[in-house]
Amino acid sequence: MRDPLQVAVVGVTGYTGLELARILLRHPALQPPVFYVRETNGAKCLAELFPQFRGWGEAPLRPLSVEAIVSSNAGTAFLATPHEVSAELAPALIKGGLRVVDLSGAFRFRDAETFTAWYKLPAPQAEWLAEAVYGIPELYSSEIAKARLVANPGCYATSVILALRPLTQAGLLASGSSVVCDCKSGASGAGKDPRRDLHFVEVDENFKAYSLFTHRHTPEILEHTGLNESQVVFSTHLLPLARGILATIYVTLGEPQTAADIESLYRQFYTGRPMVRIWPAETLPELQHVAHTNFCDIGFALDNSGRRLVIVSCLDNLGKGAAGQAVQNFNHMLQIEEQTSLQ
Amino acid sequence: MRDPLQVAVVGVTGYTGLELARILLRHPALQPPVFYVRETNGAKCLAELFPQFRGWGEAPLRPLSVEAIVSSNAGTAFLATPHEVSAELAPALIKGGLRVVDLSGAFRFRDAETFTAWYKLPAPQAEWLAEAVYGIPELYSSEIAKARLVANPGCYATSVILALRPLTQAGLLASGSSVVCDCKSGASGAGKDPRRDLHFVEVDENFKAYSLFTHRHTPEILEHTGLNESQVVFSTHLLPLARGILATIYVTLGEPQTAADIESLYRQFYTGRPMVRIWPAETLPELQHVAHTNFCDIGFALDNSGRRLVIVSCLDNLGKGAAGQAVQNFNHMLQIEEQTSLQ
Amino acid sequence: MRDPLQVAVVGVTGYTGLELARILLRHPALQPPVFYVRETNGAKCLAELFPQFRGWGEAPLRPLSVEAIVSSNAGTAFLATPHEVSAELAPALIKGGLRVVDLSGAFRFRDAETFTAWYKLPAPQAEWLAEAVYGIPELYSSEIAKARLVANPGCYATSVILALRPLTQAGLLASGSSVVCDCKSGASGAGKDPRRDLHFVEVDENFKAYSLFTHRHTPEILEHTGLNESQVVFSTHLLPLARGILATIYVTLGEPQTAADIESLYRQFYTGRPMVRIWPAETLPELQHVAHTNFCDIGFALDNSGRRLVIVSCLDNLGKGAAGQAVQNFNHMLQIEEQTSLQ
Amino acid sequence: MRDPLQVAVVGVTGYTGLELARILLRHPALQPPVFYVRETNGAKCLAELFPQFRGWGEAPLRPLSVEAIVSSNAGTAFLATPHEVSAELAPALIKGGLRVVDLSGAFRFRDAETFTAWYKLPAPQAEWLAEAVYGIPELYSSEIAKARLVANPGCYATSVILALRPLTQAGLLASGSSVVCDCKSGASGAGKDPRRDLHFVEVDENFKAYSLFTHRHTPEILEHTGLNESQVVFSTHLLPLARGILATIYVTLGEPQTAADIESLYRQFYTGRPMVRIWPAETLPELQHVAHTNFCDIGFALDNSGRRLVIVSCLDNLGKGAAGQAVQNFNHMLQIEEQTSLQ
Repeated sequence: MRDPLQVAVVGVTGYTGLELARILLRHPALQPPVFYVRETNGAKCLAELFPQFRGWGEAPLRPLSVEAIVSSNAGTAFLATPHEVSAELAPALIKGGLRVVDLSGAFRFRDAETFTAWYKLPAPQAEWLAEAVYGIPELYSSEIAKARLVANPGCYATSVILALRPLTQAGLLASGSSVVCDCKSGASGAGKDPRRDLHFVEVDENFKAYSLFTHRHTPEILEHTGLNESQVVFSTHLLPLARGILATIYVTLGEPQTAADIESLYRQFYTGRPMVRIWPAETLPELQHVAHTNFCDIGFALDNSGRRLVIVSCLDNLGKGAAGQAVQNFNHMLQIEEQTSLQ
Repeated sequence: MRDPLQVAVVGVTGYTGLELARILLRHPALQPPVFYVRETNGAKCLAELFPQFRGWGEAPLRPLSVEAIVSSNAGTAFLATPHEVSAELAPALIKGGLRVVDLSGAFRFRDAETFTAWYKLPAPQAEWLAEAVYGIPELYSSEIAKARLVANPGCYATSVILALRPLTQAGLLASGSSVVCDCKSGASGAGKDPRRDLHFVEVDENFKAYSLFTHRHTPEILEHTGLNESQVVFSTHLLPLARGILATIYVTLGEPQTAADIESLYRQFYTGRPMVRIWPAETLPELQHVAHTNFCDIGFALDNSGRRLVIVSCLDNLGKGAAGQAVQNFNHMLQIEEQTSLQ
Repeated sequence: MRDPLQVAVVGVTGYTGLELARILLRHPALQPPVFYVRETNGAKCLAELFPQFRGWGEAPLRPLSVEAIVSSNAGTAFLATPHEVSAELAPALIKGGLRVVDLSGAFRFRDAETFTAWYKLPAPQAEWLAEAVYGIPELYSSEIAKARLVANPGCYATSVILALRPLTQAGLLASGSSVVCDCKSGASGAGKDPRRDLHFVEVDENFKAYSLFTHRHTPEILEHTGLNESQVVFSTHLLPLARGILATIYVTLGEPQTAADIESLYRQFYTGRPMVRIWPAETLPELQHVAHTNFCDIGFALDNSGRRLVIVSCLDNLGKGAAGQAVQNFNHMLQIEEQTSLQ
Repeated sequence: MRDPLQVAVVGVTGYTGLELARILLRHPALQPPVFYVRETNGAKCLAELFPQFRGWGEAPLRPLSVEAIVSSNAGTAFLATPHEVSAELAPALIKGGLRVVDLSGAFRFRDAETFTAWYKLPAPQAEWLAEAVYGIPELYSSEIAKARLVANPGCYATSVILALRPLTQAGLLASGSSVVCDCKSGASGAGKDPRRDLHFVEVDENFKAYSLFTHRHTPEILEHTGLNESQVVFSTHLLPLARGILATIYVTLGEPQTAADIESLYRQFYTGRPMVRIWPAETLPELQHVAHTNFCDIGFALDNSGRRLVIVSCLDNLGKGAAGQAVQNFNHMLQIEEQTSLQ
C-alpha cells in the first residue's frame, strides 16, 4: 500500500537533486526518502556518494528502476532527471499508482508543439500534458492539491511570472507596450556537468548575456502571464556566484499609478502566500536575502510619471526556483502546511 | 616653460587614481608623472603609500597645492578628485597655463542646472562648462585635440552612449519607443571608501539593483544620444566582482533590419576607432574580454521580426570607463597615437 | 519565574548574532527568543532591521538593559557582544538568575593575566573566570551541562583544538617537536564593521596572511591541547569567501603510525560526538562540506615514514566556530539532544 | 637564417599559453610571434580563436609541425605543451637550430628517475636533461644566457625556492629541523580543461587541500634548496580565485636572528634582481600586490625567540610562476633588459 509520507527521489546527482535531498531529509512529516540513481557505483547510501551528508543523510541509495519504485510503498516520486527521462518515467510511475513531482521541462506545456519547438525533443503524449498541473502554488494551489502530476516550473520563469502576474491579471499594462525581463542567474542553474564555459576561471570575475530571444523558459512566461511573444523580451545572464536569480522587469502602465497603489496590488495578490514577500515601496530585495531560502522577494520602483515601473524579483534558483518549490508543491499535494521543511 | 610630456596627477588614492597611475607610469612618451595628494603622511614617493608600485613606480609624491602644480613645468593635469574639488582646481590650473583632464562629474554638462539637479552641488561657472569638451574620443576627437578642459565621462554613460549613438544618429529607433538600459557594474566603480554595503561579505555571492530612475549618469546618456528622459529607463546593478560594466540595452527599430545591416552600421560608425570592437552577429562580448583593457566591446542580438534589438556593451569601468579613457583623451590632446600605453 | 525554554539574545547586529538568530528562531524546543540591541532605531521586531527575517523571524526587538532581561522570564542569555560588554553583562545576568552563553573572548581563560596580555583589556573578576566553562562539548560536556557561564570558544581555536586533542591526549607527538597550524578563514570571521581591508575590492581575488605570532586565539589552543607556546606556530590567513575555516596542521609523531591507526584514534576519540566527522584515510574534507552546518570535519595524510602527519580540519566559522557551537552548548545545558536545530 | 627576435609559440590554448601570448605580443623588441596549435579549426590568426585578442593580437596561427617551425626563421621556440609533447618537440627543435624555453615539467630534472617517479612518464634522453638549464634567472642567469634549452620551473616551486634559497645558501636552518611549505594557488594553475572539481560551483566559496606529500613540484624544491625529502613537508591548496600563489613557509633557525638580520640577508641576496621584492620587516605581501605582474614578493615574521621564522612568498602563477618567468628567461637568453615586456 502506498504511504503518502514515503517518497522516492530519482536523480540526486545534480545540484537540484542534492538540494532536494537536503530539504527532504529534514522534512519532519516524512519517512526517510529513498534515492534512486542510474549509477550507484556500489554505494548503498547517499552519504557514500556525497560526503556532505555523512552523519545525517544516511538515506538508502538504489539503482534506478521503475519496477523498484512501483513495488515500494512510496506515495510520491520526485524526478530530478533530464527532460527525456522524465517524459518516460512520469507516466510509468503514475500508472503504477504514484503521484509525481517532475522538475524537468517535459510536462510544463499543454501544447506538444510548444515543447518540441523550444526543446527540440519529442513531447510526452498529449494526455499526460493535459493532466499535468503547472506547479506555482501561489497561482494554482487547488489544482496542485489534487494533481497526480505536477510540472515544477523553470527557475527564471518562476521569478518572472510571480513578478508580472499581479499586473497582467489586473490589466494594468499599457496596451501594445513591451515588457523587458532582464534576468541574471548564478552558475548552479546551469547544472553540474563540467563544461568549458562553466569552468571556475571562465565564470569568476566574469559576466555575460546568453540565449537572447531563445531561452526555453520563454513559453512558460508567456503562458502564465497571458502575454504574447511579440510583447516580451526575455534575456538571461550568468552571474559569478553559485545561487540566485534576480529579474529586473520593465513595464509601462496604461494609467498612472502611485507607489502605494502598486505595493497594495502586490500585497493583496499575495495575501496568505508567505513564500512571496513584497518589499515596501522605495526598497529593493537583494540576492542575499533569498539565498538558501524558498522565498521569492519582490520590490519595485516607479518613475515620476507613475507609468514606468521597474520590478525586481529574486529567489534562490535551487530553492523557490527548483527543489524548494517542488517540496512546496508536495506539501500542497499532502495538504499540509506549505512551508514545512522550507524555513 | 610647460612641457607637454610632463603631467601632474591629482588624487591618486582611489581606484581610478591608482589605475591612472598604472597607465601613466608605463606611458612611453611621458616623463615620470608627479603625483599630488591631500595627505602624503610623510611619503615622498608613490610606492611608499602603495606597495604594489615598489620597484617600478617610484614616482614623486607631493602635497596638493595649486601653486606647486602651476609652478612646475607640467603641461597637463589629471584630476581624479571629488566633483567639488575638481570644480575649483580645474579653472585655477587652466588659468595657470595647464590643460586639464577631469575625471569627476563637475564639467560633464553644458547646463549648470542639470549638474545641480542631479549632483545636489553648486555648478562650476558657466564659462567653464561651456569650454569643457565631453571626452569620448570616438565621438569628439577633433574638439578634444584642441581642448583646454576635457570632462572625462561616467563609466556607465560611456558604455551606453557608445552602444546607442550609431542607432540614434542613423535615426533607426521607432518613434516614441522606449529604450531600456539595464547596466551592471563591478564594485570598484563604487569607490574605495569603506561602506557597509561594500563590505566583502555584503557583496560576495550577492547581486542587487540600485539607484533606479535616479542615477547621475542619466543626463550624460540623454545629452549624447539625443534621447529625452521619458524615452530612456536606465538602471544600475552591483556585481560581485571587482572590475567591469556590462550594459544590456533594449531598443525597438522603426523599420525591420537584418543582422548584417546592424553589424555593418556599427562597423562603419566605428571605422578607424580601434578601442571600440564590434562583435560579429550571433556572438556576444563578455566582461572577461575587456577587463584590464581600454576596449569597449559591442555585440547584439536581433529577433525574428528584425525590429527588436538587444545590444550588449561592455568595458572595464576603471579602463575605458575612467582612467583608460582619460589617457586616450590625453593622447588625442597630444596628437599622438590614441592607443599609446593602452594595450 | 525563569523559563529554561525562553532565551534572551544580546547583540544581534554582527554576523555571529545574525547566525545565532537564524538558528534559535528555528529551534523547535524554544519559545521565540527576545532580541536586545543597543540601538533599536525605533524597530520593534527583528525583521524591521534585517529584511531577510521578514515573514518568519518577526521576533521582538528591545533596547538593551540588564534590568529588562533580568525582569523577563528568560532562563538563558546569549551574549554576542564585544569582550568588554560581555565582561560586564555576564556577571550581572548570572546574579539576576540567568545562565549565560558568552560568545566573546572575555571568559575563555582561567588566568586573568593571559586575557590581559592578549586582549589588552582589563580581565573580568577572577571568580567569574574560575566559574566559566570552556564550551567545546566534545571535550567538556558534563561541565557544560551544569554551567552557569559558558565561554564559547574562538573559531580558529575550535578547529585546531578538535584536530590536535586526540593526538596530544594520547601522547603521540614527538617530544620537542613543533606543531605548525596554518589556518585560513573567510571574511565573515573578521566582523561586520566597514574597514578598508575588508572592502569587497580588497578581499576579492586576494589572499593574505595576518597576525603571525600574535593572534588572540593562540592561548586557547595552548590551554586546551596542553602544548606550550614554544611548540606551536599558529598562523592565520584571509580567504576571499564569506564563511569557513580550514586549518592545515603539521605534526611529527614520536613513533611511526599507520593511516589505520590514526583514523581509528580519531574515530574512537569522537565516538558519540556526531558534530565531529572523521574522514576516511586518503580523503580530505573541504570547506563546502561544512559551510552552513555545525560540523567540524577532520581528515589527514600520513607520509611514508609514518611519522609526519598533516591534519586538515574544517568548519563554518559562524556555525561550529561560533553561533552553532553556542547553541550546541545551550542544548547540553538544557540536557536535550545536542544537534537540536543544528542540522 | 634564424632571427633571434622572431619567436614561435607552441600551444597557446591553455591559460599559460594565453598569458605568454599576451606578454609576447607586447614585447617591444620582437617581431610578431607565430603561434602553432594542434587544431586551428580553420583559424588563420590568434584573434579568431580568442576574441580578447581582436584588434591588437592578430598574429598568425598555424598548425603545429616541427618542419614548419624549423623552416621558419624563428630563433627561439616557447613550448606551452604537455610534458610528453615537450619531451619530443624540444630536442627536434634544438636539432633544427632553435633555442627552446619549455614550460612543461619534462626537462626540470637532471635525473631521469626523478622525473619518472613523480610524473609516471618516460623521461627525455639523458643528454637533453643534462643540457637543460633550470630557469630561475635570480639563481642561474649566466647559464640561462647561454642555454639552448631552458626548463621553466613549476609555479609552486618558484615561490618556495625563491623564499628558501637565501636561508639554505647561508646555512641558517637549524640542523635536522623540518621546513613546512603550506602553499595556496588560484584555479588557473590547474589548467583549462573542464573538470568536475574545477567547475565554478565547486571552487566558488570553497577551499581545500590536495596532493599532500605527492605534489610533482616537490623534487624541484628539494633540488634547488639542497634540502632532502625528510626535511620538507610541501602542501598545496586550491583558492577560490583565478590567479596567484601564496606560500607560507615555516622554518627554525640554528641561531637566533633579528628581523633586521633577516631583512638584510634577503635584500643582499636579491640585490640587482628587481623581479623579487623584499618587504620591510613587520609587513607582509598579499596576492593583490603581484596579480598580473612578474614579481615575486617576499615578507616574513620572526617570533620573540628569533629562531622561528615564517616567510610569506607570493607571485602570479601565470606570471612569475609560468609565462612571465619564461619571457624573463628569454630576455636573458637575448641578453636584453630582463624586465622587458614584464612591467
